[in-house]
Amino acid sequence: MAKFTRRYNRKRIGLSPGSIDHITTSSENYSISAYCYGEDILEKKELVNPSDLEKLLSSKKGSVWININGLNTSIVDQICSSYKIHPLFVEDILHLGQRPKLEEGENYLFLVLNMINFDTIKDEVIHEQVSIIFNQEFIISFQELEGDVFDPVRLRLEAGKGKIRKSGTDYLAYALLDVIVDRFYLVLEQLGNKIEMLEEKVLDDPSIELLYEINRLKRDFILLRKNIWPLREVLNSLMNNDMTIVSAHTRVFIKDVYDHTIQVMDSIDTYREMLSSILDIYMSSISNRQNDVMKTLTIIATIFIPLTFLVGVYGMNFRVMPELDWEYGYYTVWGIMIIVGLSLLLYFKRKNWM
Amino acid sequence: MAKFTRRYNRKRIGLSPGSIDHITTSSENYSISAYCYGEDILEKKELVNPSDLEKLLSSKKGSVWININGLNTSIVDQICSSYKIHPLFVEDILHLGQRPKLEEGENYLFLVLNMINFDTIKDEVIHEQVSIIFNQEFIISFQELEGDVFDPVRLRLEAGKGKIRKSGTDYLAYALLDVIVDRFYLVLEQLGNKIEMLEEKVLDDPSIELLYEINRLKRDFILLRKNIWPLREVLNSLMNNDMTIVSAHTRVFIKDVYDHTIQVMDSIDTYREMLSSILDIYMSSISNRQNDVMKTLTIIATIFIPLTFLVGVYGMNFRVMPELDWEYGYYTVWGIMIIVGLSLLLYFKRKNWM
Amino acid sequence: MAKFTRRYNRKRIGLSPGSIDHITTSSENYSISAYCYGEDILEKKELVNPSDLEKLLSSKKGSVWININGLNTSIVDQICSSYKIHPLFVEDILHLGQRPKLEEGENYLFLVLNMINFDTIKDEVIHEQVSIIFNQEFIISFQELEGDVFDPVRLRLEAGKGKIRKSGTDYLAYALLDVIVDRFYLVLEQLGNKIEMLEEKVLDDPSIELLYEINRLKRDFILLRKNIWPLREVLNSLMNNDMTIVSAHTRVFIKDVYDHTIQVMDSIDTYREMLSSILDIYMSSISNRQNDVMKTLTIIATIFIPLTFLVGVYGMNFRVMPELDWEYGYYTVWGIMIIVGLSLLLYFKRKNWM
Amino acid sequence: MAKFTRRYNRKRIGLSPGSIDHITTSSENYSISAYCYGEDILEKKELVNPSDLEKLLSSKKGSVWININGLNTSIVDQICSSYKIHPLFVEDILHLGQRPKLEEGENYLFLVLNMINFDTIKDEVIHEQVSIIFNQEFIISFQELEGDVFDPVRLRLEAGKGKIRKSGTDYLAYALLDVIVDRFYLVLEQLGNKIEMLEEKVLDDPSIELLYEINRLKRDFILLRKNIWPLREVLNSLMNNDMTIVSAHTRVFIKDVYDHTIQVMDSIDTYREMLSSILDIYMSSISNRQNDVMKTLTIIATIFIPLTFLVGVYGMNFRVMPELDWEYGYYTVWGIMIIVGLSLLLYFKRKNWM
Amino acid sequence: MAKFTRRYNRKRIGLSPGSIDHITTSSENYSISAYCYGEDILEKKELVNPSDLEKLLSSKKGSVWININGLNTSIVDQICSSYKIHPLFVEDILHLGQRPKLEEGENYLFLVLNMINFDTIKDEVIHEQVSIIFNQEFIISFQELEGDVFDPVRLRLEAGKGKIRKSGTDYLAYALLDVIVDRFYLVLEQLGNKIEMLEEKVLDDPSIELLYEINRLKRDFILLRKNIWPLREVLNSLMNNDMTIVSAHTRVFIKDVYDHTIQVMDSIDTYREMLSSILDIYMSSISNRQNDVMKTLTIIATIFIPLTFLVGVYGMNFRVMPELDWEYGYYTVWGIMIIVGLSLLLYFKRKNWM
Repeated sequence: MAKFTRRYNRKRIGLSPGSIDHITTSSENYSISAYCYGEDILEKKELVNPSDLEKLLSSKKGSVWININGLNTSIVDQICSSYKIHPLFVEDILHLGQRPKLEEGENYLFLVLNMINFDTIKDEVIHEQVSIIFNQEFIISFQELEGDVFDPVRLRLEAGKGKIRKSGTDYLAYALLDVIVDRFYLVLEQLGNKIEMLEEKVLDDPSIELLYEINRLKRDFILLRKNIWPLREVLNSLMNNDMTIVSAHTRVFIKDVYDHTIQVMDSIDTYREMLSSILDIYMSSISNRQNDVMKTLTIIATIFIPLTFLVGVYGMNFRVMPELDWEYGYYTVWGIMIIVGLSLLLYFKRKNWM
Repeated sequence: MAKFTRRYNRKRIGLSPGSIDHITTSSENYSISAYCYGEDILEKKELVNPSDLEKLLSSKKGSVWININGLNTSIVDQICSSYKIHPLFVEDILHLGQRPKLEEGENYLFLVLNMINFDTIKDEVIHEQVSIIFNQEFIISFQELEGDVFDPVRLRLEAGKGKIRKSGTDYLAYALLDVIVDRFYLVLEQLGNKIEMLEEKVLDDPSIELLYEINRLKRDFILLRKNIWPLREVLNSLMNNDMTIVSAHTRVFIKDVYDHTIQVMDSIDTYREMLSSILDIYMSSISNRQNDVMKTLTIIATIFIPLTFLVGVYGMNFRVMPELDWEYGYYTVWGIMIIVGLSLLLYFKRKNWM
Repeated sequence: MAKFTRRYNRKRIGLSPGSIDHITTSSENYSISAYCYGEDILEKKELVNPSDLEKLLSSKKGSVWININGLNTSIVDQICSSYKIHPLFVEDILHLGQRPKLEEGENYLFLVLNMINFDTIKDEVIHEQVSIIFNQEFIISFQELEGDVFDPVRLRLEAGKGKIRKSGTDYLAYALLDVIVDRFYLVLEQLGNKIEMLEEKVLDDPSIELLYEINRLKRDFILLRKNIWPLREVLNSLMNNDMTIVSAHTRVFIKDVYDHTIQVMDSIDTYREMLSSILDIYMSSISNRQNDVMKTLTIIATIFIPLTFLVGVYGMNFRVMPELDWEYGYYTVWGIMIIVGLSLLLYFKRKNWM
Repeated sequence: MAKFTRRYNRKRIGLSPGSIDHITTSSENYSISAYCYGEDILEKKELVNPSDLEKLLSSKKGSVWININGLNTSIVDQICSSYKIHPLFVEDILHLGQRPKLEEGENYLFLVLNMINFDTIKDEVIHEQVSIIFNQEFIISFQELEGDVFDPVRLRLEAGKGKIRKSGTDYLAYALLDVIVDRFYLVLEQLGNKIEMLEEKVLDDPSIELLYEINRLKRDFILLRKNIWPLREVLNSLMNNDMTIVSAHTRVFIKDVYDHTIQVMDSIDTYREMLSSILDIYMSSISNRQNDVMKTLTIIATIFIPLTFLVGVYGMNFRVMPELDWEYGYYTVWGIMIIVGLSLLLYFKRKNWM
Repeated sequence: MAKFTRRYNRKRIGLSPGSIDHITTSSENYSISAYCYGEDILEKKELVNPSDLEKLLSSKKGSVWININGLNTSIVDQICSSYKIHPLFVEDILHLGQRPKLEEGENYLFLVLNMINFDTIKDEVIHEQVSIIFNQEFIISFQELEGDVFDPVRLRLEAGKGKIRKSGTDYLAYALLDVIVDRFYLVLEQLGNKIEMLEEKVLDDPSIELLYEINRLKRDFILLRKNIWPLREVLNSLMNNDMTIVSAHTRVFIKDVYDHTIQVMDSIDTYREMLSSILDIYMSSISNRQNDVMKTLTIIATIFIPLTFLVGVYGMNFRVMPELDWEYGYYTVWGIMIIVGLSLLLYFKRKNWM
């Protein structure tokens, strides 16, 4: 639950906005990498501290991509101030739990996004905040956690194939967004597998744990939906905003990513419908079992209660009970009881209770 | 389930867009047919490979319709590149699982659609992706699977009756769209029959299999809805876009197809309401049966438990029990028991439990 | 169910649009009546075939209203072609199951509507397709079935009272629409009566037939809603379209009909809410009865099972059982049993189970 | 139920619009009062028939407010025709069951509204139709029933305090609307009290009558909602229409009434949510009681059935049954039975069933 | 419940608007504090009565912030009239239960808001009405209750850090709004904790009190939603209105608060979904327990009823019953009974009932 409210703690309330003194997290593990690239050039550097960055940039040719893994407060602060990023945006980068959004800075665009992932060990969906700042000259990406998510983009950049080296930073921004949206497909696949497993289990073993599982999955889909929905809006604004930072050429590609988010939303809706079907079947299965129990009780009780009454009759101690003295009285009673029992069994069979 | 996520596999993530190296399917079975037609001419050719196509086209008169059955990667690629189709659209043609959409190319319109069908053998709704590219001069259609879906259009073309030969490629595009939307009616009819069968079964035999069936149908309707909804949008854009590719004359016909999609959506909604009615009755029928079981148990138990008590009384071995020595004690007890039993039966009758 | 899909049969698919060779119905029973009317004139004629019509029209003064009862293909075709109606509209007139809509022809307006009615014998809502074509000079109405629905309009026309003779064909079109919308009130009244009957029955006799009845009514309201909703849109377009066919004077009256459709929709919503209330009560009533059964069983079993145990104790054959030899043992046991039984009864009373 | 369809009866269908021959109600009890008022003047007159009105008006100074209590057909007709009100509006005034709406006449505004009230004797929400016609010179209000609803406005008018005498007829119209919207608060308060009573009863006595009560309240809120919703639209149009009848000064006050309708809608929504909570608790409470019954049965049966079996064993008549001859056999059996009984009780206690 | 209707009491209805004679509350405990501040100056004063205020203001330099704690009618009236606030706004300040809204006065903006808080002692969410009036020169805030909510703003003002002293009154207004929105996070955190507690309890102890708790929380979230929704609209208007009172510089910050309200709404939705999950599990848990009860009954009854029948058989007193005379008859019967009992137990085990 912490996820929903993690942005705020009591101490922060009333703080001056843009103040980064009391942010919630500051990772000590961070890494900075910088790429200077163009159609013919590619320079890559792992940096230890931001001051090295300035050296690199002074001699820069082509476009620059700086990627920061791990949100160290002072590092983020230094880089942002050297690029004159608005303090509110710096605050957004550092405070986790942002809603995806696109903001226009003075001469740059600022994006906050949530990248999702499926942690197969903990068996749960995890979120990671990614911020991207770019204009025609540079692109800076901040990742909450260390990770190799952007590796495919790096590979394409280093291989120099495709359009990525020839196109500007806006195209690189598109490439990063594409990778982030593609993550949703992977997570959907994992959750889809879980749903299939639930579908199989629901009839065989409708335990209350299954209900928990169903509800956990439901919540996962709600979270996915909450993340993809504003992401779609972000992409829509990117496609339609009138700043010159995003070229017409790149907008076509962003439209493609946008289509993917709609597809993801469709899938999410379908999965949610499937979950509610499973819930229906779960409920029905439970009530079916209850019915089974009831039927068993009814069959046994309905057969033996009358018979017990009958043997009770001949257990009475009346002085005058002619049947007791009959030669075949005992056997007659057995006969009657067998007939009664069998007819009841037949009746239940006919009623489809057995 | 594969359907919802089939577009993406891990390897693809991060690939350069428009690259067709790693598409999900490439059919080896394909066929290409080409029609050159006009008011007075009709030339038809089955092609083995795309190069034959160019020969044909060089001598072309009138409009050209090329139909490709089976999505072979290289074939699609060749044809598209000879018509200068945007790489992203080629990717869309080849990657299955697209959401229906209309895109404007430089001088052509690009449509991706899902054609549905009811596989009576597998007893399920199947989807097939159809892509259409057209401008005033040519129209190219790509079908995922071999099939005779467009045969009615071919027949009309060959017969030369109606407007189809006199009108341009936009009218042919309309004819194809009309055929695709008509498919929905056929599938709705099949599903409608299934619903009627369910309606009959739900009272007689409310098994849990029926619930599965209901949920499968529900899902089918969700899928239909997910396909018809964007199709409606596509038709709406075709009707209202301001490119000159679609003539005013054809727009009237497209409006007609558009009306059909709305009718289909209405029917889908009605069927869904019917399904939820059936679900209501199913639940009620289940609980009715449970009630029947309970009533049987109650009637039997309520009659015999007091009687068993009574015979138990006279089975006691007290030394002093005057009734036991009465001449007609035994018969009196029987009399009492019959009276008690009958009055209980009457009581249940009056309560409407029998 | 046929209603939802009746428009299409397999053979039609792929047919040239506007072709009327394969329409679903062609009534042999038809009648044509024509009115030529103006402020001072009124000529009425029953026609046998459309050619008579032309004679009549050649000498026409004032406005013309032609009403066709029964959809005979060739008749409809002749009339429409003499008025140059677009083939797609002719197809719409002849194919039943249209969604209400308003289309603009070259110099006329085309309306398709569904008139509803309550068949008191079959006890169900029936639908009839009505098409109206009009411009400033003529108005043509097509009814699917023979009927006297438009009689009130005829009477007013013949009586010459009110504005109907003085106003143009657009006012007559309004008059017909008014009659059609008024039908909804009649049907709502019938369905309202049925709901009241259900409300009374639901507590006394909550059988599964009642559930069927509730669901049938629900479906009726869904159908009504599906018909009134597009009708409202049609009226809205009539009110706001910018063609000169509908005069400002008539628009005020159409606004009045439009208000009625909104009132009808309100009533439909209210009835639907009432139905779902009845369903709630039905469910509750069923579960109440089940509860009654359970309570009866519990009371009887809970009283007699302990007593049966007690008499069982003194039915044991132990050699040493001092109570058996007591003078008043038997009576004491009876005393104990009566006390136990009464206290249990009291307990149930206090628990409100009796 | 009559309320929803009361506007129409069979005879009316097809009547000429605006004809007032066949209206549904014509009250014989009516009263007409007229106020001529301005900043310094106030003349008040109770009129017997409309002709007196003209006398009064000929000498009029300042604004005029005519209020008619009770809808007498001929009176309404006379007054409206002397002010040249459109016949359709006259029809609306006289036919009850109108949906609230605002219409623009030639040089006046026409409002139909529903005033609600809570009849504490019949314990139900009642509706009364109020129509208001006004321009800069006069305001006419028609009330369906005799009543003192507008008394507060009269008092303010007579007292001459506040802005009411200084402002024009549009301000008086506002004052009437304000009174009508305030009624909703009163009714909400009454219904709120009922909900609180239901909340208390639902746990103690969840009878089926309570369910009826809940459903009746639900319906009341639906009706309120259906009345406040179009009223809000009416106020919105009043605020934003571009006629000069409503002055900018008055629009600020109408905005205030508009805000109240939104508040009323908020409250209605909240109450409806509360009702559905109560329904949840009702259902739960019912099932709780059923559970109680079941537990009682289970406890008694589960304890005594095994014991009865045991005493049955020693009631058998086998020749050889060593236990029967033991000195303490009888006491041993009692011991065993007490131990079994107590352990079962303990088990139930631990399971939290007692 | 009083909360929803507290604005109106019978006496008020029909009162002249803007009259403050009959307001619902007038607190005797009030305090007035005034700040005159600028980049270099800060004067603070606690006032006893409003006349002192004028003295202070006559000598004012920089911006002025007047904060009134406790809504004393005459105080509010005096202050507002000295600033020429519209009487309707004064009424809004004094009447509690307003819906959050933004109104434009002649040369000022008027805001009514609801501040929420979690009363940990009463364990409930409480609401407090806050009104803010500001233009470029002054800002006046009215709080319903005494409280230290604005203390963080006061501290920042006194510390002189950040932008608060350098920016104008619009920035101060933003700071107050920020504090108010931040409160929602705190309350969400509290309610989130409660939900977590419910989640733990729902399986262990699904009592009906828990259901009450769930429904109370549901209602709390509805109230939160009802408060945050119009607040969002207010912020949106502040951001986008075209008055010059709010500077472009401040609008960026208001956008930030606006984003927070969207985040709050997201969290509320998520929590509501969680609550409905908990309700599902509650229902399931209840039915699970019922099932447990049923199973216990069925197992015991199904085992012992047949056995009791068997011992009943040998308790009969027939003269001829050969088994009774067998040497090992008694032991054979025990053997049979043990076998029957064990096989039934096995059967239940296999059916997963134990």
